[in-house]
Amino acid sequence: MNLSLKGFLAAGVCAGIKEEGKLDLGLIYSEKEASVGAVFTRNKVKAAPITVSQAHLTMNRGKAKAIIVNSGNANACTGNKGIEDALRTAQLVADQLGIARQQVLVASTGVIGKRLDMNSISKAIPKVVKDLSPTGLDRFAKAIMTTDTFPKISVFEGDGYKIVGIAKGAGMIMPDMATMLSFILTDIQADPEWLQSTLLRTVEKTFNRITVDGQTSTNDTVIIMANGTSNITEADTFREGLFKVCSELSKMIVKDGEGATKIVDIIVKGAKSPSDAITGARSVANSSLVKTAIYGEDPNWGRIMAALGSSGIEIEPEYVDIWIEDVQIVSAGQGTGEEKEKMASERMKKNEFSILIDLKKGPYQDHILTCDLTHKYVSINAEYRT
Amino acid sequence: MNLSLKGFLAAGVCAGIKEEGKLDLGLIYSEKEASVGAVFTRNKVKAAPITVSQAHLTMNRGKAKAIIVNSGNANACTGNKGIEDALRTAQLVADQLGIARQQVLVASTGVIGKRLDMNSISKAIPKVVKDLSPTGLDRFAKAIMTTDTFPKISVFEGDGYKIVGIAKGAGMIMPDMATMLSFILTDIQADPEWLQSTLLRTVEKTFNRITVDGQTSTNDTVIIMANGTSNITEADTFREGLFKVCSELSKMIVKDGEGATKIVDIIVKGAKSPSDAITGARSVANSSLVKTAIYGEDPNWGRIMAALGSSGIEIEPEYVDIWIEDVQIVSAGQGTGEEKEKMASERMKKNEFSILIDLKKGPYQDHILTCDLTHKYVSINAEYRT
Repeated sequence: MNLSLKGFLAAGVCAGIKEEGKLDLGLIYSEKEASVGAVFTRNKVKAAPITVSQAHLTMNRGKAKAIIVNSGNANACTGNKGIEDALRTAQLVADQLGIARQQVLVASTGVIGKRLDMNSISKAIPKVVKDLSPTGLDRFAKAIMTTDTFPKISVFEGDGYKIVGIAKGAGMIMPDMATMLSFILTDIQADPEWLQSTLLRTVEKTFNRITVDGQTSTNDTVIIMANGTSNITEADTFREGLFKVCSELSKMIVKDGEGATKIVDIIVKGAKSPSDAITGARSVANSSLVKTAIYGEDPNWGRIMAALGSSGIEIEPEYVDIWIEDVQIVSAGQGTGEEKEKMASERMKKNEFSILIDLKKGPYQDHILTCDLTHKYVSINAEYRT
Repeated sequence: MNLSLKGFLAAGVCAGIKEEGKLDLGLIYSEKEASVGAVFTRNKVKAAPITVSQAHLTMNRGKAKAIIVNSGNANACTGNKGIEDALRTAQLVADQLGIARQQVLVASTGVIGKRLDMNSISKAIPKVVKDLSPTGLDRFAKAIMTTDTFPKISVFEGDGYKIVGIAKGAGMIMPDMATMLSFILTDIQADPEWLQSTLLRTVEKTFNRITVDGQTSTNDTVIIMANGTSNITEADTFREGLFKVCSELSKMIVKDGEGATKIVDIIVKGAKSPSDAITGARSVANSSLVKTAIYGEDPNWGRIMAALGSSGIEIEPEYVDIWIEDVQIVSAGQGTGEEKEKMASERMKKNEFSILIDLKKGPYQDHILTCDLTHKYVSINAEYRT
């Protein structure tokens, strides 16, 4: 996969924030000032780098030249000192690159509530700037990982332009409006406003349609940078390309969900309203009883019905049909028998499958991509942080 | 513990609904027609016995003489046939006891979506009626268990009257308005209206303040029967006694939460509104990241902050204080250091402790009793039903 994109340089180095030897500081640099679209977490507890990036984008009217990202420490719940640390990080990068501080965006991911080790970061910034290269994006993708087990990269080749997307995320995943960390680069020519509205629409249908554990992070960030080095301006096919990149990255995050062994698309159709469709899907996708049944390959549709019934949506149980892939396990609110359940259980042995719920109350449909709840999820999250 | 209560008889037998030899059919019989208070699940997917019990209570103006309960099968999502099965069960009990069908309440608990085995039940009903005795409540308490590991019983001795409460429940527990199964008997003299309003107020503060897995069941039922065999009428101390009984039973359910090793009281104070207090507490109590951290005895307060921040309540992170028992781990939104975290981790080694969150935004306080999320929860719920 060819990740390089004209005008963009990237790097990833070891700053010593994570355990020794692991990449934990990444930098993206756009030689031309790029148009930026960005969405951030709606969690009311927001990390310092989010406050700083939002301020820089406002000050610099939706344009930027660099993104500096560290993993291993979220710089969240760190108060004014945390803001100072994020500002100082941006300043150090700006100084090394010879640009203005407000041209630098900042992102962090990792443990909440610990001050950044600014000593290590100051020492590493000259290194990461020196490391910048046209082929550095794969090292960047590794430098932003935390509990991720693989780097998440997706590329779309448009007609005369290109989109490269990178993401991280495995736990504390139920993006709402924004998401974990994702950085998307393109050489298209675009105004920040156009880029922002295109990004918002795409994020709503991709990153905001996944869940690992129903937990919305304090550090969720998606940033897209368009440096305009191609001859293409705001192409019609761009939205489609961006959708493909964001869909692939979203799916990779669920696939890499902490301890996950299966990825399941929960589809609700026949809902009375758009909000009923998404609320119903989310309620099933976040049910720990449904998620453990998926792990056990048990088509336990009673748990699906119970999750729907308590979600507050319009539902009449005697209307509901449920399919697992091509096997109908519920017809008009009642089970279709043991034979069908056995077939459904067979379908559930696959690593990826869908559960389709038809409420038969209206024309609306939506979906959420989720994963199973496993012993390993408990192990990963019960381990003491130190 | 003396469970017997003048005028009440009870029984528990093996009808063969659960695996061989286990008690699975329970009966309570009040010699005098008793006043009844009852609350049922708000899940829109309601089991057949709930529909039947609600109809009987309306037909018989809040009075009843018997409650028949089976475990092993919830008789939920069984359509009109399920309603017929529940009505027939009530009729068979009525015939054996020589009373009217509408004097019989019905409850079921167990697997969702399977028809009741009416053949086994019809054969067992004469047995359970014959088994009725003043000392039968302990067998009744065992007959209503599913994944419970111990029977749940609480007794309050009032001045001249008595309250005996029995409950079951371990998974699919986040009662809202009503709860799992609980049956409360008293010899006080009371109108159904007085009993109902007293029960509603008590349930709101007890059963509706617990969670095991954030899942509201299809079969939640709390029924109180007052047979008036004591000389005491609607005593002032009764509410206090009922609160004590319902609190104890609620706590037993969390303690017996599927796979649970710890019981934790999540207290939110300083909330701007009563709904912020309960929503904040519920969000923390249902967070799978907080629950796994409790299992790992890790005072991971970042997860608590993230759960609060995404709950939609009024919160300013820089105001928040958090204590684990007597150890303050967050002050004004920031960690109080490693030493305190070590102390907090020590407190978390106990089987029972509290987490107190002060939002400092207003005068309101509420709490939710929760348990940890463990490997065993995953094992119990990933196992195939058959």
